[in-house]
Amino acid sequence: MSAPFVSIGRLSEHAGRSVSLRGWLNNKSSKGKLHFVQLRDGSGYVQCVVFQKSVTPEFFEAVGRAGQESSLVLEGEVVADARAPGGFEIQVKGGAVLQSVDGFPIGPKEHGPDFLLSQRHLWLRSKRQWALLRIRDAVITALRGFFDEHDFVCMDSPMFTPSACEGTSTLFEVGYFDRKAYLTQSGQLYAEASAMAFGKVYCFGPTFRAEKSKTRRHLTEFWMLEPEVAFATLEDVLELAEDMLVHTVAEVLRRRKPELEVLERDLTKLAAIQKPFPRMTYDQAAAILKDTPDSTFRYGDDLGAADETILSLRHDRPVMITHYPAAVKAFYMKREPASDKVKCVDVIGPEGVGELIGGSQREDDLELLLHRIREEKLPEEAYQWYLDLRRYGSVPHSGFGLGLERTVAWIAGVEHVREAIPFPRTMYRMEP
Amino acid sequence: MSAPFVSIGRLSEHAGRSVSLRGWLNNKSSKGKLHFVQLRDGSGYVQCVVFQKSVTPEFFEAVGRAGQESSLVLEGEVVADARAPGGFEIQVKGGAVLQSVDGFPIGPKEHGPDFLLSQRHLWLRSKRQWALLRIRDAVITALRGFFDEHDFVCMDSPMFTPSACEGTSTLFEVGYFDRKAYLTQSGQLYAEASAMAFGKVYCFGPTFRAEKSKTRRHLTEFWMLEPEVAFATLEDVLELAEDMLVHTVAEVLRRRKPELEVLERDLTKLAAIQKPFPRMTYDQAAAILKDTPDSTFRYGDDLGAADETILSLRHDRPVMITHYPAAVKAFYMKREPASDKVKCVDVIGPEGVGELIGGSQREDDLELLLHRIREEKLPEEAYQWYLDLRRYGSVPHSGFGLGLERTVAWIAGVEHVREAIPFPRTMYRMEP
Repeated sequence: MSAPFVSIGRLSEHAGRSVSLRGWLNNKSSKGKLHFVQLRDGSGYVQCVVFQKSVTPEFFEAVGRAGQESSLVLEGEVVADARAPGGFEIQVKGGAVLQSVDGFPIGPKEHGPDFLLSQRHLWLRSKRQWALLRIRDAVITALRGFFDEHDFVCMDSPMFTPSACEGTSTLFEVGYFDRKAYLTQSGQLYAEASAMAFGKVYCFGPTFRAEKSKTRRHLTEFWMLEPEVAFATLEDVLELAEDMLVHTVAEVLRRRKPELEVLERDLTKLAAIQKPFPRMTYDQAAAILKDTPDSTFRYGDDLGAADETILSLRHDRPVMITHYPAAVKAFYMKREPASDKVKCVDVIGPEGVGELIGGSQREDDLELLLHRIREEKLPEEAYQWYLDLRRYGSVPHSGFGLGLERTVAWIAGVEHVREAIPFPRTMYRMEP
Repeated sequence: MSAPFVSIGRLSEHAGRSVSLRGWLNNKSSKGKLHFVQLRDGSGYVQCVVFQKSVTPEFFEAVGRAGQESSLVLEGEVVADARAPGGFEIQVKGGAVLQSVDGFPIGPKEHGPDFLLSQRHLWLRSKRQWALLRIRDAVITALRGFFDEHDFVCMDSPMFTPSACEGTSTLFEVGYFDRKAYLTQSGQLYAEASAMAFGKVYCFGPTFRAEKSKTRRHLTEFWMLEPEVAFATLEDVLELAEDMLVHTVAEVLRRRKPELEVLERDLTKLAAIQKPFPRMTYDQAAAILKDTPDSTFRYGDDLGAADETILSLRHDRPVMITHYPAAVKAFYMKREPASDKVKCVDVIGPEGVGELIGGSQREDDLELLLHRIREEKLPEEAYQWYLDLRRYGSVPHSGFGLGLERTVAWIAGVEHVREAIPFPRTMYRMEP
């Protein structure tokens, strides 16, 4: 190729010029002396017109034989065309078929989810997965950028932990030389230690739950972002969560509009994600559910998925529900004075997507925290280092955890979290 | 407090004004009617002068009693002082001791590494660890920023894998419902699948090696960044690695100079990290080692840590060693035509820090790859999905893996990788 190699995503910078493209044949239709090749190179899609008279007979025939996912190099002119998706097409002058493919397993026809998941390494090449996972990428970049701009320090919490943070039934156990280790379910306790050293921190890594659950909301391995802020109250992290989500949605709208369009996402639903988010207490939520005919909610219980859906569908943006009963929440959450409620928040995503965020102000009083650890019959010895944070310069502090895949599924408007991660791991699946 | 809360890291924006600060007492000296409090809040350190006449007698006494790591709120005026570290000090007008601490376990005296590691949750508050892990944060941000600016897509590879990527002796085994899973040692094979779908990708997450090694270079859990690029040759990723490292060092110099000074890092060594990096083949490296009296290197072997140190100390920047014998490298590396060498690179950090990067062009020919899998007696069935990448639109592609902790240790100029991660995990340690 004599023309420079460029990426499809940057074609607009080369309008009217000759370029070389490298990629895969996503789709093709032929009409006598013309082949219309839809080429994808990972950065985008473009229609390439191969006119018999403009290329060698050998190349014209090779393109004619090339099936879906054949790898190609094409050289041609970038021509503005308002009708073309992306605004440009390529008038091909030459090229080569690198590998001609016949029988790519995933065709344009419908396939079942089990088949597609078993072909995940190839399914990633479909336009829908391309769009969705580029949105995931933009969500990650927006989240990290938000915390970096706000002077947070990234402090990775460990994957191997000697004991459980919350409950033991959903822990993955690992042989660790001559001991046992457990895979982390949350980086929070470590993030609290980090916040006492660095003020404002976040961790953002994989977390693991051995949940025997087959719902569309569960993965055994998922990424969680957990900011933790020294001297912050619950009120402070409500604002932080709001700002973070508004920023992230705005960034995806700014950077990934073509991808959202591929997914036929209703952009007005995303444009509506603005401050302030509706806030209500658990008691207020309970009162709404009491007046909802189909709700099976009982006061004192945690909110179930169905309850969350009822509450979320009343609003066009995430709903922040605060002050749950201590009995249904984790031991480290700070009590409201003279109350059975804790200073906590669940942020329920819109459109029935479920819980995006769980957070709280943390108990900063040594005696109250120790009392809660004993009440829950947790192994006191294993929490000595965590209690140290209340012995040596304890300060009010708060934080939350954001589930990445649920956030991506919500913003992209897809139903299943298993599509919101490159290689999903579920109870029944860890291949490919 | 009536004055606004600000962070120490942003004091220069408030020169001459009254502010409130929240943090911990890092150090204190008293001289009659004066207490000099060095306050830290995670964003920085500042000297706060408490003059008896300017505050209440109760507060003056409380400060006098407060030991290291007591939590404090202070209000006062930001006064420029060229002699003060950071250029400012606080003339205190009031405040409160939130929790007065006596007997913080880590004092100014020297402690042994075992003790410090057992107190990692508190050790993080020392100035050295603060500086070092803020450099880690800047390295992460610089790396992710570099790939984002170059149109790479972040594609997280999975942690749970059904089989080994390279060797089985150093795998961590996990009970996965009624099966066994293994923790990933490298995201590369998955990144290759992602590159065929997204063109330019990277994964950046924890990886695991159950190595029975106690050296200063090994952790059981460490973060690895792995870019993978469709249509890239070895030459292309050599340039990518060079650009990435130059960018990252420049960003750390730009954003973390005070932290580098805390660590007494020789900044001229970092300023020297510029393109081009010296390149040599394995054969050229072998010839140098042959002429080095203390080297025990034998031609045909992999380079050992001692060999790498000999080669790295000859240069002031990372050294790129290419074209190792296939016999000492992984099965997926592409052969040089008619040669027993592979298209690979090890990037050896300067100052004896060891291997920072390992990479290669990947074998893209189905038959040659299958042959190598059989030659190494790897489980062919488990690699079918990986072989699919050579069946359906195979293209030349290349990538590499960067060890985050070694990179941080090198840039920060510290000897032990265990200090370059917030909560290090080694053969003997997973607490706290």
